[in-house]
Amino acid sequence: MLGIGDDAALVNPSPNFQLVVATDTLVESVHFPVDASAEQIATRALCVNLSDMAAMGATPRWFTLALTLEKADAPWLAGFSRGLAQVADEFALALIGGDTTAGPLTISMTLIGEVPIGEALPRAGANVGDSIYVTGTLGDGAAALRLLTSNDEKGLVDSERLLTRFYRPQPQIQVGLKLRGIANACIDISDGLLADLAHLCRASAVSADLKSKRLPIHPDVEESYPQYSLDWALSGGDDYQLCFTVSQDKCTIVNRWIEVGDLNATMIGQIQPATGGNFPVRVDNVTVELNRGFDHFGC
Amino acid sequence: MLGIGDDAALVNPSPNFQLVVATDTLVESVHFPVDASAEQIATRALCVNLSDMAAMGATPRWFTLALTLEKADAPWLAGFSRGLAQVADEFALALIGGDTTAGPLTISMTLIGEVPIGEALPRAGANVGDSIYVTGTLGDGAAALRLLTSNDEKGLVDSERLLTRFYRPQPQIQVGLKLRGIANACIDISDGLLADLAHLCRASAVSADLKSKRLPIHPDVEESYPQYSLDWALSGGDDYQLCFTVSQDKCTIVNRWIEVGDLNATMIGQIQPATGGNFPVRVDNVTVELNRGFDHFGC
Repeated sequence: MLGIGDDAALVNPSPNFQLVVATDTLVESVHFPVDASAEQIATRALCVNLSDMAAMGATPRWFTLALTLEKADAPWLAGFSRGLAQVADEFALALIGGDTTAGPLTISMTLIGEVPIGEALPRAGANVGDSIYVTGTLGDGAAALRLLTSNDEKGLVDSERLLTRFYRPQPQIQVGLKLRGIANACIDISDGLLADLAHLCRASAVSADLKSKRLPIHPDVEESYPQYSLDWALSGGDDYQLCFTVSQDKCTIVNRWIEVGDLNATMIGQIQPATGGNFPVRVDNVTVELNRGFDHFGC
Repeated sequence: MLGIGDDAALVNPSPNFQLVVATDTLVESVHFPVDASAEQIATRALCVNLSDMAAMGATPRWFTLALTLEKADAPWLAGFSRGLAQVADEFALALIGGDTTAGPLTISMTLIGEVPIGEALPRAGANVGDSIYVTGTLGDGAAALRLLTSNDEKGLVDSERLLTRFYRPQPQIQVGLKLRGIANACIDISDGLLADLAHLCRASAVSADLKSKRLPIHPDVEESYPQYSLDWALSGGDDYQLCFTVSQDKCTIVNRWIEVGDLNATMIGQIQPATGGNFPVRVDNVTVELNRGFDHFGC
């Protein structure tokens, strides 16, 4: 109603919806390489933030941008705006305000989405007996990081596909909407499947059993990095796929969607009871120790 | 409903209200001195952001925090949290999410407030014949900056009062609420009265006449800095008072509030027609050239 230019933006929320609010910050050399283009930085920042909306089953509506940069640089800003507009247009998302300040390159975004009252997908809803699914393929984010941080591998893999996955991950908004009323719990995979599934298990007070053979790894990554691909699928970050759990009575619906091509997802395991006060994630019956956080761009 | 810990926060907006969304970023050495305490930084950041809500006549409800800092430092974070909690409690504001990243100290906040549909105070509503008011006193922000950036003046003024004004400006939330349905246009003074009133005039397609004798300057600042105080009242930043315009038929209400002590504000001038395609601000009948932006902490 009142956009950029006033002291604040004024927007009309939909009646009978709840607001979903998420803030994420990207810092140069931590979340993207120093030589990333302005357009790449913008698309990555917005897609990463949109992934949080997808995980909640929300329809993204509005966002604000806090952009800190060393100095005003017209070509850089033009590229950045172009990247932002591309993604915002694709998801019918309106930039409603923000702030530009001088300082080291940092991009912070706050997205506001909407979900019908009571239909948000929580982390805490998983029940014993649920099947665990993930969308798309896992390990592409880590493979892309490898490409970006080492020179020895170029040409081995489809680098175009991987770089697109890194700079323009596909937020699974449509899947999130589809899963309302179907999934019991949902999380997006930003820090790696094991770490994020562990968050979901802790929030739901359950444990998880995964079958490594079932993990969806892109054939190109599996062939090019046979020594790493499973580890990346389990522990690599930056995949921005959804991991969700579904009661047995609704699995037939989900499996049917997968069968007919309406949903790109794979069943990878089952939710089990907590063991004592612990909420472990087991792979092929072995409890995995989460002894390291994923460190994004390796800095 | 779902707070920190999930992928995003879930909140319930009030029916028949609009959302007011504002984002502001503070960068070390630009918006606050390097030696500011964590608590001072937190209170200043949140108060500055709340001032945007006040300018819109909004009730602040929720906020997210994107905090970038060099390294996790427990005492620093404890002080920062204490400052944040003080202000959030005072304004019944809930911290619903955010992000913490490694990098140069930067604080970005997004506030979400609410206003009944159609009752927000815009910049663009000033009409010819309106009286122009400001709340509180002007020039305190600039005087505080002088205190913080030079050593030669300490002791001359009430530095306690000025430092409080700098690190904990009083967001004029209650005044904003009171002005719903009364003020035609409103803006908060962050870049200086002249600069911000010029924004209001441009948005409203009008000009403004100010009387310098009417500008409310604190006696302490006027006496200690006789050579600067008028300039600071006109062009100093960081005052975070409200400047608003009121139709003649409602001025009696506002003047009565002022008289009985229900509103701390001063009438400082009148809205006049635009001159050609220009929207000047005149002080004592002289058009003021806005030939410089206010540079906050002088970096």
